[in-house]
Amino acid sequence: MISGKNYIGNELIAQGSKTYNTINPNSNTSNKTIFYEATIEEVNTAAILASKAFEVYKNISDLEKANFLKTIANELEAIKDELIDIYIEESGLPNGRANGEFGRTTSQLRAFATMLKEGSWVEAIITKTENKPDIRRMQFAIGPVAIFGASNFPFAFSTAGGDTASALAAGCPVVVKSHPLHAGTGELVSSAIIKAVQKCNMPNGVFSNLNSSGIAVGESLVKHPLIKAVGFTGSIKAGTALCKLAANREEPIPVYAEMGSINPVVILPSALKSKGAFWATQYAGSITAGTGQFCTNPGLILGIKDDTLDEFIKHLKETISSIAPSCMLHPQIKSNYEENKATLLSQEGSHAILNAVNNVPENYVLPQIITVDGAIFLENKIYQKEVFGPFSIVVKCDDKEQLTQVLSKLEGQLTGTILNDDENELNTFKNAIEALKSRVGRLIFNGVPTGVEVCAAMTHGGPFPATSNSKFTSVGLTAVQRWVRPVSYQDWPNALLPEALKNENPLQIWRTVNGEITKNVL
Amino acid sequence: MISGKNYIGNELIAQGSKTYNTINPNSNTSNKTIFYEATIEEVNTAAILASKAFEVYKNISDLEKANFLKTIANELEAIKDELIDIYIEESGLPNGRANGEFGRTTSQLRAFATMLKEGSWVEAIITKTENKPDIRRMQFAIGPVAIFGASNFPFAFSTAGGDTASALAAGCPVVVKSHPLHAGTGELVSSAIIKAVQKCNMPNGVFSNLNSSGIAVGESLVKHPLIKAVGFTGSIKAGTALCKLAANREEPIPVYAEMGSINPVVILPSALKSKGAFWATQYAGSITAGTGQFCTNPGLILGIKDDTLDEFIKHLKETISSIAPSCMLHPQIKSNYEENKATLLSQEGSHAILNAVNNVPENYVLPQIITVDGAIFLENKIYQKEVFGPFSIVVKCDDKEQLTQVLSKLEGQLTGTILNDDENELNTFKNAIEALKSRVGRLIFNGVPTGVEVCAAMTHGGPFPATSNSKFTSVGLTAVQRWVRPVSYQDWPNALLPEALKNENPLQIWRTVNGEITKNVL
Repeated sequence: MISGKNYIGNELIAQGSKTYNTINPNSNTSNKTIFYEATIEEVNTAAILASKAFEVYKNISDLEKANFLKTIANELEAIKDELIDIYIEESGLPNGRANGEFGRTTSQLRAFATMLKEGSWVEAIITKTENKPDIRRMQFAIGPVAIFGASNFPFAFSTAGGDTASALAAGCPVVVKSHPLHAGTGELVSSAIIKAVQKCNMPNGVFSNLNSSGIAVGESLVKHPLIKAVGFTGSIKAGTALCKLAANREEPIPVYAEMGSINPVVILPSALKSKGAFWATQYAGSITAGTGQFCTNPGLILGIKDDTLDEFIKHLKETISSIAPSCMLHPQIKSNYEENKATLLSQEGSHAILNAVNNVPENYVLPQIITVDGAIFLENKIYQKEVFGPFSIVVKCDDKEQLTQVLSKLEGQLTGTILNDDENELNTFKNAIEALKSRVGRLIFNGVPTGVEVCAAMTHGGPFPATSNSKFTSVGLTAVQRWVRPVSYQDWPNALLPEALKNENPLQIWRTVNGEITKNVL
Repeated sequence: MISGKNYIGNELIAQGSKTYNTINPNSNTSNKTIFYEATIEEVNTAAILASKAFEVYKNISDLEKANFLKTIANELEAIKDELIDIYIEESGLPNGRANGEFGRTTSQLRAFATMLKEGSWVEAIITKTENKPDIRRMQFAIGPVAIFGASNFPFAFSTAGGDTASALAAGCPVVVKSHPLHAGTGELVSSAIIKAVQKCNMPNGVFSNLNSSGIAVGESLVKHPLIKAVGFTGSIKAGTALCKLAANREEPIPVYAEMGSINPVVILPSALKSKGAFWATQYAGSITAGTGQFCTNPGLILGIKDDTLDEFIKHLKETISSIAPSCMLHPQIKSNYEENKATLLSQEGSHAILNAVNNVPENYVLPQIITVDGAIFLENKIYQKEVFGPFSIVVKCDDKEQLTQVLSKLEGQLTGTILNDDENELNTFKNAIEALKSRVGRLIFNGVPTGVEVCAAMTHGGPFPATSNSKFTSVGLTAVQRWVRPVSYQDWPNALLPEALKNENPLQIWRTVNGEITKNVL
């Protein structure tokens, strides 16, 4: 069923000679399909097809695009069993996770379809005053975009994930650089998208999927003059490299890179006192979920030194000790985990709370937690390095001033969490909360950062280096804003205006007319 | 009244030894004030003060910020006569223009004040569904920003111009890099802003004004770790250099650069036939207004070869011939104009329609128009180079296909204009209009591109190289979006939420609640 070829538009093509396999991390064996890396010519053909498709696709109505997205979801569901099988085979992630992520992916596609049917996402603004020009503005698709699949979300942040769904919703053709760890999942998901392209009569080239095992395909995509923006989820190193590549093009283009985060959690004295054991259990789960391979994994827990913090650490140790080893996505990801963990364990002032255990299966790992004093954390920036995996640091601060200081020195983060059991206490930690807010894209109260709702109000983003552009989110409906730009029409004849801007408001959308938000006709 | 010093926060300081003068381009004499370029230490002090001010300013209510912006407008009006005098002295622009731009600047400040008082600009989005986290999102100021004054708009795109007004509205302190051509105007405008800072008890450092005659001050500002974004209006060369500098910082920051445009105008056969003389007069005015020193100057007029196009060119020649020479902003700007004009005049296939005239006063220039065939324009990219000044090219296309081809090959532009006198004709030029739309930020029908309304629906932006980021505008209310980023609150206690997100909607703003736009309480 899986060919190992690239989808260049609707066609399966493999002209190249560079091949690779995926592996099954659970059994530590190679999977059998041979994948053909896209050649530079195939990259070029995909970009040209995407650019031609754009001339048609950008003018397709929101209703038709909505139907296209729903059809993709349906086609995915039609091959769900095969998709779940290959997902597990290539990722080593358990069945429950595979199913959960699958559901997230199809509901994400349908959420963007609903947004399109409602129609107000184009942000229509009309200024019409006497004796002045009539100005009307809305958002339009920017052109073909390149989307990089993520290692840790073969469904939800890859081929048909949030980046692709939001770009297709905006009206932008998508060229996916498939993630090498799950090339088979990528091809199978692509086959569902291509079926939807054909069923809905979408232009050939509106979607392509390029196999890639190194950096050449991604680089040539980002440098391709017909590609107008990039979506990426992955490491800080790769993300910043792509940003620089894009910034140094003859025509610079935006790269929306979601790169990494250690997601600080502040456990306030009231929560330690009355709910320490509860939060220890919750966080043992959050730190180890998906073998810690989440962008929102809580890698940093901050508290103020006292007996209740020690109790919390003891509970955390006990709960995590009982968690069985679990599989990582790839031997390389495991070895990075072990290496980064060892680096932090070897720092001065670092104390591991769990004993090292040998004899875990190949590609399996155990979680680890270290503790460190606030003063030492402040002095040593290495403690802010993300350890991708089931790992977290508990920082023991001397007092609330030191806590605030630690928070204000943090790099940009996707999330920040406050755990509290007494609202009066919050006022006394105002500075700490304010410092946390200035470093994050999402603030969570009495919860865990893992689990990112797909909804209109979500921000899955944050200051650098959590992302390359803190103004945007890669999860939730406003993710579509990355792929559009505004055009204003001045004194344009009503008959020639796009539907969203016509006097009669035929789409019945919300528009800002002279400062009032209304669905009224003009 | 003008000291020649820098405003480092509220204080006038000049520790440096590098000095410069402005000149009066009309009389070609030096103005008497000696300006002290800011030292790198002064840049640093301004950035630190701005960062400290941000800790206070970001939490100041929208109503107080509105009052601050209105007070700046009032303080400018209190010294209007002196401002107009020095504006004319330093720019060589006429009194009418000085007054018009002054009015635009104060009304722009008041427009942002009105936006703040209304309050919905923070884009509050609330998703509250049963059994799911409560997520609420809004926009917050990003931190201190650097604003570069523009040579051609000493009031409206400089010290207290749209960039500064929108950044202060967002909640961002501003450090201005004063434009060397009008350092005196810059200082005097700054004095009004500082008076408003003090009257309104705004934190010291919320505004600074740095003198600068070379590139050192601007570079060190853009590289300063406490500066979080940059606003710039100027040349493509300087703008792209700043973008690269910002992209290569340890923490990259966005640069919103408005850089240049030749603003294509398509004069369709119907308009040539029935209104050729009218449009020739209109465009003679638009090309020469402000000695052509506008970003929206119409530098490219496209028509289809026939007698009516020749008639139009003849009318244009006659009208422009009668226009008196006018003063440019600076001898260097004049010499750039003469040089760029000469380059285009020397290209193969270029025909000047006006005779060269000697004996114009120093710093004064005369307009020039050249004609060129569509085929030649297509072959030679130099014809797309902006000639900053009263200059335009008429491109004579063979037919509508060639016209479409020319339009689709254009670089990104701020504006594109269609002149037409028969709606039925528009359908037959659909491809040309679509090609034009894909290249511009604003489409104008039967008008001139000069004159940019400050309103909610305006886009003064466009694809590269018109700007560095086509998603944003530097004119109009949405200019504020450049200086903010979203933060989402998850399950946050109502009492601790920002006013804009509280259940009771105390600010009575428009919010998107579960997909509905409403002012209702939750």
